[in-house]
Amino acid sequence: MAQRIRGVLAPVITPFRPDYSPDTDRFVRHCRWLLANGCNGLAVFGTNSEANSLSSGERMALLEQLVAGGVPPSSLMPGTGCCSLTESVELSAHAVKLGCAGVLMLPPFYYKGVPDEGLYRHFSEVIQRVGDARLQLYLYHIPPVAIVPITRTLIERLLDAYPQAVAGLKDSSGDWSHTVGLIAAFGNRGFDVFAGSEVFLLRTLEAGGAGCITAGANVNPHGIQAVYGAWTAREGAETAQGSADAVRKVLQSSSSMIPALKAVVAHHAGDPAWRTVRPPLAELGADEEQKLLATLEELHFGMPGLRMS
Amino acid sequence: MAQRIRGVLAPVITPFRPDYSPDTDRFVRHCRWLLANGCNGLAVFGTNSEANSLSSGERMALLEQLVAGGVPPSSLMPGTGCCSLTESVELSAHAVKLGCAGVLMLPPFYYKGVPDEGLYRHFSEVIQRVGDARLQLYLYHIPPVAIVPITRTLIERLLDAYPQAVAGLKDSSGDWSHTVGLIAAFGNRGFDVFAGSEVFLLRTLEAGGAGCITAGANVNPHGIQAVYGAWTAREGAETAQGSADAVRKVLQSSSSMIPALKAVVAHHAGDPAWRTVRPPLAELGADEEQKLLATLEELHFGMPGLRMS
Repeated sequence: MAQRIRGVLAPVITPFRPDYSPDTDRFVRHCRWLLANGCNGLAVFGTNSEANSLSSGERMALLEQLVAGGVPPSSLMPGTGCCSLTESVELSAHAVKLGCAGVLMLPPFYYKGVPDEGLYRHFSEVIQRVGDARLQLYLYHIPPVAIVPITRTLIERLLDAYPQAVAGLKDSSGDWSHTVGLIAAFGNRGFDVFAGSEVFLLRTLEAGGAGCITAGANVNPHGIQAVYGAWTAREGAETAQGSADAVRKVLQSSSSMIPALKAVVAHHAGDPAWRTVRPPLAELGADEEQKLLATLEELHFGMPGLRMS
Repeated sequence: MAQRIRGVLAPVITPFRPDYSPDTDRFVRHCRWLLANGCNGLAVFGTNSEANSLSSGERMALLEQLVAGGVPPSSLMPGTGCCSLTESVELSAHAVKLGCAGVLMLPPFYYKGVPDEGLYRHFSEVIQRVGDARLQLYLYHIPPVAIVPITRTLIERLLDAYPQAVAGLKDSSGDWSHTVGLIAAFGNRGFDVFAGSEVFLLRTLEAGGAGCITAGANVNPHGIQAVYGAWTAREGAETAQGSADAVRKVLQSSSSMIPALKAVVAHHAGDPAWRTVRPPLAELGADEEQKLLATLEELHFGMPGLRMS
């Protein structure tokens, strides 16, 4: 088996044209910039990608264009978890066939209060129907948004049944005690836990986790990679974590993370088209955007090499 | 414009084969039974239809097979609201082209805490992109499941912009004061409010609402139509409402409504295949099912004509 993906992954924001169709050129360009500037991998089609506002067909077309555009599939962990079993299987099989490093799967999230038995059947059917030994499935626990959780009982049952395919989890609970509990419970079974925010990166690595998959990596890949690099080099990790936290704190203070990330990219790329978000989201107001950019400026924040020539 | 659909609508449960593929024959048969036994219309692909566990392709195929199977499109109000604008447009346009009476649209439900501006853009884009004067759009307010609400501000803005297309709303808030408030606010603008449960049917009709779209109509269409008929005839409506309430109370006491409805249909049709639910749901336990059926028996509950010959 190839070495598993680790380190800093960005849930890549998805650019849209004025008619809300995905903008492939800007998407490929941003993915290449992220990989050249600190990201170890790209969790395309995550929450911050507005992927749940895309159809399955749009996701598959974008993924193919990304690979055709020169982004190595070994760096990709696309989101493939949909409400329907049918689409979750289709997207996961498609990603595996393209050679992606893994897939990041939300639980089906429309029905609430569903039994673990039903969730187990969903993931189990996906693994069996994809039927490919290359599948590396990362579970996506994000209770504030999906509402439906991935419980420890469910993880245990899936790991018991599919120890090769079930590769890890992204924990976006925002609760460090939960993350460290998962690492302690399953880390020794080859289960790679990624924190859902860079603020937990150093602690995750020290506890034996695999890295982070975080919104902030869309705009601050250097700063977050600095934490990972310093931890590997055993020098200066706490200072680097402090600097990454400062940027995160500013991003998180905005009323809505996705339009905030897009406003920052639009500004630093000198490319206002990046501001567009697909409904049901809406852009930040002008005042809020100005304040966000000014606060980042005070931190001497920059995105070198992003500006379009 | 044709007369709008009113009365008792069932969010039709969807039968599955053992491999979880939709079972078209059983679906068409159940739809025909419902129309012959008290339903004025069929809100196929609703929450109780496990429609959010189906792909868009599966929904469109089933709808075409239903119409081909002799179910009049004028009786149909399919659910077409998806998380993605792309799919919501595709399903809504497809339903309108088939001649459906209306479409019942969930808001995009993955992202939480989204602004009304973003939701307005979503519905507005659907209406414009469908671009067909026949479109009758019913908004679907079901905060306990979708979490994302349809606010009164949003309804007002949509009605102002699209008075012909925006036809009404299904209120599954479970809060009567909310339902009656919507009827009072928008009823005089041709906005048809359906209650989300038969327990509110008589009150809804008395307040000027259009009827109900309710899980219970899958198994008790006679009993619920009796309320509607008695209200129209101005005789015996309260007695009929009491009888309908008694059946609803039993259904609602089960741990999960959808498998409960399927267990009741499986039993009364003499057709165990009906028990199958698609992940992430799971069937009722045997003990719970026995108790549910026995409690209905005590009410002399029946589904005449359902048994397969």
